[in-house]
Order: sequence, then C-alpha cells, then structure tokens
Amino acid sequence: MIDLAFVPDRASPIPVYRQLGDALRALIDRGRLAAGVKLPATRELSVALGLHRNTVSRTYQDLVGEGYLTAHVGQGTFVARRPPQGVPRPASHDAGEVDAFVWPGLFARRVRDLAVPPSLRRVAAAARKVPMRYSFRGGQIAADALPERDLRRAFDRVVSYRLPELANLHEPRGYAPLRRAIAQHLVTRGIACGAEEVLVVNGSQQALDLLARVLLDPGDTVAVEEPGYFGATLAFSAAGANLVGVPVDAQGLRTDRLERVLQARRVKLVCATPSAHCPTSATMREPRRRALLALSDEHQAPIVEDDYDSELRYEGAPIPALKGQDPAGRVIYVGTFSKIVFPSLRIGYMVAAPALLEKLVLARWVADAQPPVVPQAALAELLASGALDRHVRRMRKLYAERRDAMLAALEASMPVGAAWSRPAGGHLVWVTLPPGTDPDGLLEAALAAGVEYTPGEAFHLDGRGREHLALCFTNLTREAIGEGVARLGEILRSQLARPRRRSER
Amino acid sequence: MIDLAFVPDRASPIPVYRQLGDALRALIDRGRLAAGVKLPATRELSVALGLHRNTVSRTYQDLVGEGYLTAHVGQGTFVARRPPQGVPRPASHDAGEVDAFVWPGLFARRVRDLAVPPSLRRVAAAARKVPMRYSFRGGQIAADALPERDLRRAFDRVVSYRLPELANLHEPRGYAPLRRAIAQHLVTRGIACGAEEVLVVNGSQQALDLLARVLLDPGDTVAVEEPGYFGATLAFSAAGANLVGVPVDAQGLRTDRLERVLQARRVKLVCATPSAHCPTSATMREPRRRALLALSDEHQAPIVEDDYDSELRYEGAPIPALKGQDPAGRVIYVGTFSKIVFPSLRIGYMVAAPALLEKLVLARWVADAQPPVVPQAALAELLASGALDRHVRRMRKLYAERRDAMLAALEASMPVGAAWSRPAGGHLVWVTLPPGTDPDGLLEAALAAGVEYTPGEAFHLDGRGREHLALCFTNLTREAIGEGVARLGEILRSQLARPRRRSER
Repeated sequence: MIDLAFVPDRASPIPVYRQLGDALRALIDRGRLAAGVKLPATRELSVALGLHRNTVSRTYQDLVGEGYLTAHVGQGTFVARRPPQGVPRPASHDAGEVDAFVWPGLFARRVRDLAVPPSLRRVAAAARKVPMRYSFRGGQIAADALPERDLRRAFDRVVSYRLPELANLHEPRGYAPLRRAIAQHLVTRGIACGAEEVLVVNGSQQALDLLARVLLDPGDTVAVEEPGYFGATLAFSAAGANLVGVPVDAQGLRTDRLERVLQARRVKLVCATPSAHCPTSATMREPRRRALLALSDEHQAPIVEDDYDSELRYEGAPIPALKGQDPAGRVIYVGTFSKIVFPSLRIGYMVAAPALLEKLVLARWVADAQPPVVPQAALAELLASGALDRHVRRMRKLYAERRDAMLAALEASMPVGAAWSRPAGGHLVWVTLPPGTDPDGLLEAALAAGVEYTPGEAFHLDGRGREHLALCFTNLTREAIGEGVARLGEILRSQLARPRRRSER
Repeated sequence: MIDLAFVPDRASPIPVYRQLGDALRALIDRGRLAAGVKLPATRELSVALGLHRNTVSRTYQDLVGEGYLTAHVGQGTFVARRPPQGVPRPASHDAGEVDAFVWPGLFARRVRDLAVPPSLRRVAAAARKVPMRYSFRGGQIAADALPERDLRRAFDRVVSYRLPELANLHEPRGYAPLRRAIAQHLVTRGIACGAEEVLVVNGSQQALDLLARVLLDPGDTVAVEEPGYFGATLAFSAAGANLVGVPVDAQGLRTDRLERVLQARRVKLVCATPSAHCPTSATMREPRRRALLALSDEHQAPIVEDDYDSELRYEGAPIPALKGQDPAGRVIYVGTFSKIVFPSLRIGYMVAAPALLEKLVLARWVADAQPPVVPQAALAELLASGALDRHVRRMRKLYAERRDAMLAALEASMPVGAAWSRPAGGHLVWVTLPPGTDPDGLLEAALAAGVEYTPGEAFHLDGRGREHLALCFTNLTREAIGEGVARLGEILRSQLARPRRRSER
C-alpha cells in the first residue's frame, strides 16, 4: 500500500490532491482496495509518493466526506464498509470480454485444441465448490499420516541455517546434495547411476513435458498405454505428437500389441508404467519386461519408464526398475516423491543417457531456470537422515490396510456385474461398472453425495473408458472408505433398478 | 538400502547367496554403494528381499572374506574403505558414450541448435570449480541481508500447522491466498486486478516460456530489446520464433525503432522491461510509455511487460507499471519475487486478459501441473504480515548504498575510455569497456582473480556486445565492491598497456 504507484501530473489543471482522490476512488470502486482495509498514515503515504503531507490529508478528508473512507480517531483511516456507489466489475474484466474474441486468434496452433479431460474439470469444479467428504480422486497421499515432525525438522534446518548459501544458487539440474541422495536412493530400485546422471524436475509431469520438448517434432508418434496417465497424453499432445494407445492387461502394457504398432509405423517414444500401471496398478513381470526392452532395441524406440508409484508395494519382493536392465541407455527413467512425500511438494527426477540429459537440462533452463531450492534441500535432509525410508515403510503398512478396506468395501457394496483390480502396489483400484450403468449420472449423484473419484474416460485418448472409474484408497480412513464406497454402491443399485434414461455409449 | 531391488532367479544353477553377492559386488564396484556405507542388518535385508536370513549372512561373510565388506562386532557391516578392485566407470556411462552419437539424431528440430550463451556457460563452469570471491554475476540478491527471522517464521507456520490441508492440493494457477496477496501487492504497481487474474509461476522464466508455448508458432516474430534478457531470448527461440532486436537508449526500448519493425513485418509479441531495463537498468518515461501502448494498439501486438526489477528503486517516485495504463488488456504483466526475496525461491506471477490466462493455466498444467505449495504458502505469510514490505524498504536503502559504492569504485578504478550506466533502480550497472580491450582475456583474467560478472554478449542475439559487461552490485559489501572493481581495473589497465594479442571483433 505504501508504494501505491501514483504519479501526479504536475502539468495538469487538476490539483494533485484531486488526482490522488481519483486514483483512490477508482481502486475502491473496482474493489481493489477492499472494504475495511486500513490506509497508510498520511505521513507514510506522503513520503512514499513524494507529496506534501497536507495534500494527502486533504485527499483523505474529501474521501471521508464522500463516504469512500471512514476515519477513526486513534486508529486510522479505512475503506468504508459500504462505498457510495461501486462499479461492479474492474475495467480489466470488460477488456477481457472483448479480448475473448481477440486472443484465441493469436494462440499457437499446437495449443488451440489442447484441453484437460472434461471429466477431470468437472470433478475439480465440484470439489472447489464443496469439499468432498469421500475423496477417491487419484494422486493423493495420506494427509492424516504425514511425517510432520521429520518434515518440520528438515525444513527448519534448511531455512534456519542454510539460506545464505542457497539463496542465489543457480543449478538447472537440481541441488547437488539432493541429486546425490537420489542416486543413492535409486540403488533400491536396482539402478546404478551417479548424481551427474540425475535431473531434478518439478514432479513427473515436468519430466514428461521436457521429454516432449526435446524429442518430439509435430507429427511424431508416441505409443502410450491405454488406459494410461492423462498427464503424459497432455504433454505429448501439446508437442503436436500423434498418440497411439496400446492396450493393457493384468501385466500392464501388452508388448504383443506394441510390436504390431512398432512394425506398422515409426514410433519416436514408448511410454510405460511397468512397476504399477496407471490406473490399473498392474505389474509387468518377466518375460514381458525383456520383451519390451528387446522391442525398444530392435526398433530404436526409447522407453520412458514412468516409475511414479513403484515404492508402494504391498505384496511380494520389490520389482526392480526396467532401467536397471538397460545397458544400451535407451530407457529414460522418471521417478517422483509425489506419492511417498506429498504431491504438492513437486519434486521428481529423471535418469537418462548423458547426451540426452544435457539437452534435457537445457530445456529445463528454458522452461523455468531451476527447481526451487528450499524443498529440494529439505528433501535431501529427509533422504539422508533415513526419515523418508522409515515413512515409506509405515505408508506401505497403512496403505495395505486401506487397500484391503477398499477391496472389502467393494465386495460388500458393489452390485453384481461390477469388477475391480486387486493391486499389489500403487494407490488406485480400477473399477469396471456393471453393464447398464449411466456414468454421467453416477458422477453427478456421487459428487452431490460428497464422493469424488477419477472417471475412467480421463485415462483414454478418445472418450472411451466411461464404464470405468479409478478409486484412490490412500487418503481416507478404513471407515470412510467403507462409507464412501457404500454410497457409490447405493447410487449404482438405484440406477440399475430404474429404467435407463440414457442410452449407453 | 532395505529395499535393494534384488530378485533371485530361482531357476538359475547359481545359488541365491551368490546371486546376491554378485549384485552387491556390482554396486560396490560401480561406486553406487560408497566406501564406509553401512549395510542393512542381515535380518532386515532378508525380510525385505524375502530371503532366508542364512542366505544373506553367507553373502555378507563371503564379501567380507573377499575384502568388499568389513564387519565390526556390535556395529554392523560396512562397505570396505578400499574395495579389492573397482571397475572405474558405471555401465551407463559406457552406454552414454555410444549414445552420444544416437541421441542427437532423435532430438526435436526446435531444440537442436538451442544453447545457453557460451559466455554464461564459461562463467558458470569457472564458478563451479572455485567459488568466486567477487561475484558481480547478474540476478543476485544480498545473501548477507536476508529476512531470515521472517522467512523462518513463515516457513515454520506452514510446515508445522498447514501441511495436512496443503499436501494434496492441486491448483495449477497457484495457491489462492498467495494469488490474493499478489493482487493486493500489485496495487503498489498501479495495477487493479483480482486474484482470478493472477497466475503463479516458477519465476519470470516460466512466464516467458508459457507465453512462448501459448502464443508462438514456429516462424512467428518477436520484438525484443537488444541488449536484453537472455532468458527471454532462450524461451522464444526454443518455440521456433524469429527474434528481432530493437535498440535501447537511456530510456530503454526505442519506440521509434520498434515502429519501423512493426511497419516492416507482422510482430506477434513485443517484449519490454520498462521499469528497469535489463541489463542497463534504464527507466522508460512518458511520453514513450504512451507511444509504446499506442504502437501495441495500432499493430495489435501484445506487449510482455517484464517488470522483474521494478520494486528496487533508489531515486524519485515509484514508476507505475505499463499494465495499469492498459484498458485494452493487451499488456501481459510478468512479475517476480526473485529480486526482493531470493532467486532460488522460484516464485513469479503473470497478470493477463482472462481469455489468455485460461490458456496459460492449461499450458502450466501441461508443463509441471502446479507450483510447489510450501514456498507459496510461506510467501503468502510474508506478504500478509507486512514482513516483505519492510524487507523491500530495507533493501532499497542497502542497495542504494551498494550502487553508490559501485559507482564510486568504477570512478576510482576504471581506465580512461570506460563508461557506465548510473541506475536509479534495478540491480545492474552496465559497463562499456574502453576501445582496445580484449573481452575474452579480461574474462579469463577476472575469473582467475576471483571476479565474476555477466559478459555483455550474453545480452545480444548475435555475438555483439563484447565491449560491455553487466555488474550486479547487490550481493557484496561496499568494501568488496571496491576491491573487486579495483581488480577489474588493474586487469584492464595492464591489457591496455601492452600490445594487443587479438584483433577486436
């Protein structure tokens, strides 16, 4: 407020105190100085604006007289609760309405048709209006079981002791101690790499986007899993690539079908989630892993291994990453801390062959210079102290319980004809709705009942998948999981009991 | 470590304890399990890998026998300080050397020639080897005057009390309380906008990059200041745009020259830094500001107003942003907290017409989903508490002193024929070297003497500008500024005293 940018026009016939009054009145009319806001003292404002104090006093007095401001002795001057007459919308909005016709004509070709899947927008819009009591939306962690003490300690050590050395850091590939800690962490994924082969990114989404920038020309083909992660679809589409969906089964990406695609056309990139497929949580096993690597070799098509959910395994031995079996360096590894720390931390990483990594670092410089340093340094502390390993072990136990609760709830509440995956890892259960369900009606009724989930069509390229939904089981108690799934079951049963209003697609 | 991804091949004739031994040996040989690292206890590792404890014990014993591990009673098992024989390089490096020939053939056309200015790379490489005692490199803040107590309090409040509600947040346009605080903060720049018109980005670099994505097709023309900010050049070049440099003078961008460009060709975007030009720190005044807006209107060319350094003003009244004089909504405003909090915080923002902003939000979703929430929430605290305003006032005073020290040092130490800007704002002084200087030799000798700066050619499109350099005066004490500039002066004088070894370009 002190620096309210007001430059008096000394050449104007309008006295300066009235010019200042006009400026303040306009800000109040537009709601930019909100009712009840305290104005700077006349002395402060006059110094800041280089005006005589009497000028500011006179302006204030006028506006108090007009009812724009109220003055309280010993407290100061405030914007009145009910300004005399307000212009309802700020000027920029009016301009915006005109510009709604101008701007689209200026958009780059590749972004004209770009859009988030409508079903995701619908869920997000509903949740913005009313918080959802039963949130099965994908991509969450247990907010009730955060390692809060460890996080507090890690952030505090960084902010209290290390800021002077970190404040001016410029390291596009990421904070060096974090890259070292990630390289060490990757030993647990069967990957042997050095810190110089690691690029820290803002979550796996940035990894996918940087790959799209560096490897994809418009018209290039990318093979993606279908169903598969919509963030990958968005990143590759935005680069103008053609996406070919490859079907998945209980082991994820079907390499027999991928082979047909690779034989039929030149594929620039193959995108897969072998440890825990998104959204079915299926795990790829041998010999399919070897088949995937062999296809990549034969067709010279690099593989993006999106290992986003790999640390969450509830049964059997850990599944090593494909990258560990990749002597040719053709696998581009993408990992993230979104699912084992929290998603809004926005820290992921990539491991790639040196020649590719150098270009990715450059693309990262262009995109946003470097990752923010405070979260990186705090995460490095969490990794080095062993606190993150401890947390992951606790989360495996908790999430296994919640997965079991989800599977039991589905068993208890779903109508006949529904089916679902039984994940050994990951954070999602993939549900197939009974024939005859109305997916739009289900989503509408569920949101009204405080239940949100990710609709199946969000994971498809072409509007298919409406008979599916993905349920995240990590961020609700076992009781809440039971209640939320019961609500879904009730809606489905009432749908199936009454005559269908809409034909199925 | 506990989750070392090792899957025994039960069908193999090699016993499992030897398979595990091979795996550990490989990790040690490649330096992935570093000397001195403590291994998990046999019980822990056996549970984690699903092996019998005796199997793990036998592996450990063998490796101790071979000298790979050392065992200390009561302490545990460790990687030996001197493993028997190390394979010097990890396998992925060998692959990388092969792939140095393969990957470039896969690069997208638009990134093939993309590169950070070589002079910047050179400075960064030297500074990575030896920290520079006198760092005049552009883009720094006073690391010795951070608002550490306020930052500590802000981060602690967020991490201690707010994580459960923030951990699963998904808000591509930025954390709502921060957007509200930014809209309020912009009143001080003369901009009236609502929180819904603000997009939080990872520093101004991401703002420029998102604009390039959303507005630029390959071959489109962008008019940029020359000299000007290399980050803008990188972002627009990476989108395949043609850049046209418009000369600057003591008021920044020359609108007479811009007009000629706009008459000669279709320009998609005009990029300017009217409050404090990068790198000369010149301020654009009326009537040139009105001329710039009129040109934008006449030629339907949106203006990117990069206001990155505007809060740092040492003389005269604050200069309102161009955006505040823009009823048509054709100015896209870009601001940042890099210069008033610290650069590695990575928080900037944009204000744009609603139709454009929606597309920018989508591009942001594609780029990296959303900004990290902890720094955003901490910054919102800093803004709301008034701590940031207080800090900016302190920095204005400190930086004005350091600027004066810089100007005095240049006066005292520069040889005849040198010239420099006398900035009323910003963080840089732009120096013109005397005729006959060898810029490469100067940089080399300066780096060897512990002095770094940003070479002038980094701010040009075509290798020109070698007779200039930018000196940042914010992050050194007055004494250090004097010493560093004196060293530069000595090098220059010794260069001018001896016969030239290289011809000037």
